[in-house]
Amino acid sequence: MNAEQQAVTVVGLGSMGSALAAALLDRGHPVTVWNRSAGKAGPLVDQGARPAATPREAIEASPLVIACVLDYDALHTVLDPVADALAGRTLVNLTSGSPEQAHEAAAWARSHGADYLDGAVMTTPPGVGSPEMMFLYSGSRSVFDAHRPTLAALGDPLYLGTDPGLASLYDTALLGLMWSTMTGWLHGTALVGAEKTPATEFTPVAIRWLTAAVTGFLTRYAAQVDAGRYPGDDATVDVQIAAIEHLIHAAAARGVDNALPELLKAAMLRARAAGHGSDSYASLIEVLKSPAEDK
Amino acid sequence: MNAEQQAVTVVGLGSMGSALAAALLDRGHPVTVWNRSAGKAGPLVDQGARPAATPREAIEASPLVIACVLDYDALHTVLDPVADALAGRTLVNLTSGSPEQAHEAAAWARSHGADYLDGAVMTTPPGVGSPEMMFLYSGSRSVFDAHRPTLAALGDPLYLGTDPGLASLYDTALLGLMWSTMTGWLHGTALVGAEKTPATEFTPVAIRWLTAAVTGFLTRYAAQVDAGRYPGDDATVDVQIAAIEHLIHAAAARGVDNALPELLKAAMLRARAAGHGSDSYASLIEVLKSPAEDK
Repeated sequence: MNAEQQAVTVVGLGSMGSALAAALLDRGHPVTVWNRSAGKAGPLVDQGARPAATPREAIEASPLVIACVLDYDALHTVLDPVADALAGRTLVNLTSGSPEQAHEAAAWARSHGADYLDGAVMTTPPGVGSPEMMFLYSGSRSVFDAHRPTLAALGDPLYLGTDPGLASLYDTALLGLMWSTMTGWLHGTALVGAEKTPATEFTPVAIRWLTAAVTGFLTRYAAQVDAGRYPGDDATVDVQIAAIEHLIHAAAARGVDNALPELLKAAMLRARAAGHGSDSYASLIEVLKSPAEDK
Repeated sequence: MNAEQQAVTVVGLGSMGSALAAALLDRGHPVTVWNRSAGKAGPLVDQGARPAATPREAIEASPLVIACVLDYDALHTVLDPVADALAGRTLVNLTSGSPEQAHEAAAWARSHGADYLDGAVMTTPPGVGSPEMMFLYSGSRSVFDAHRPTLAALGDPLYLGTDPGLASLYDTALLGLMWSTMTGWLHGTALVGAEKTPATEFTPVAIRWLTAAVTGFLTRYAAQVDAGRYPGDDATVDVQIAAIEHLIHAAAARGVDNALPELLKAAMLRARAAGHGSDSYASLIEVLKSPAEDK
């Protein structure tokens, strides 16, 4: 342990909470841990963590308390009875939940005299501690700045803004992007797999396509979205509609489920019907912003 | 022009064909061009290209002919009447189409004594000539190896295998991944946009998430797909189903269309119903390989 490093308490020792505590121990922070079932603390105690017998003892051990429990119900079950102990301390809440739950937790912490940051962990437990992995935070800028050096032990801390709901809103939006990307990748993998191409052969090409080309389209289209103008000078919605027919045909011929490309095509057709046939793909945001049922 | 560089003919001067010819001229190749409507050649002739008066003259000008026209109908309309001129030359066909069309074109070229490579351009015209951009090729390995130095003028040439349909199968699969990713990104952008976050602020975070984290999941899951075993030790389908409820709820509360996350959730529920609740997301390939209608 390093006397210069801030003392931190970690509440919740599931696989993610345990990874957070281990990363802090690795950087020499004095770490106090607490978990509802005591057995989880064992490996961390072996690495130098101090086990607290009660939530109150855990909170009182450090000026910074990081909570990562199953959900907001679990969070309140643990912290409500000892909320007075949080006064004058900082609670960084990495529990997954909605922006609305983050707002409520921020108000709750404030009412007990605690500083509050809401956060989202954008990696799996094995990625914790890696400086490439993003940790998203929202809430008070000064609280973030004060604890940034400590939070950097967990991953790269990104500050999103004062609205405490932003971290979980981004989290949710990024998970949606992940599921879309993973499902599109699985569809492509099934398609080339029907012609005996192994997933491990297709995937490096798919990753290169994503990182070298598709991210460039996203950057260009982001500016179009903010401008509300979608010039189709690279590829138009009409061109994409023609191209997705090839995908649907090729997948159908190989017995691959086409629900995803059919949905994507339907979104493109809605964009065309709304007058965006000659615009770029970014124009689809106009139809996403207004649900199909209302049309 | 450089006397050591191979002479190349480019047939088809749409925006992509013109970009191909310009990239070859940039590298000092003698380039002959032909287009159905003559006006398109002007800017390339200014850069040093030689305009051919007829398809036959174009083909006879170079040992390597690169074709990039609207579709296979256009390809055959142009080349069928002069197919005899292709004997002893190489045709690299970058026209978009299906694997089946590539197979037919390969057989057609062979019947006329021509070498044939099928290819797919994995960038937009402004990306042509950049060494990061992928050009996919399939067909004879020796033909690819012989022309690789010339093809490198266009982008990074990747050889996929002897089946001439592979380039267009990959092309289609990669476009599917692109549409899925772009639509997932637009959905997330609409979601954070509802809370006044600009697309240009969300997108760098989304790109970093894709490149630093999601690509890591794809690499891990590709090995699982090939093994046909999907250990859910990082995150299970059951966990993803719980998490996507947050997305659907957050998007509905903000008036964002939920057709895409609803479809993704339905795919996850099918995977759970098939016994993959405790497996990783990669197990969804099992349900994609067998269309929903058959279940």
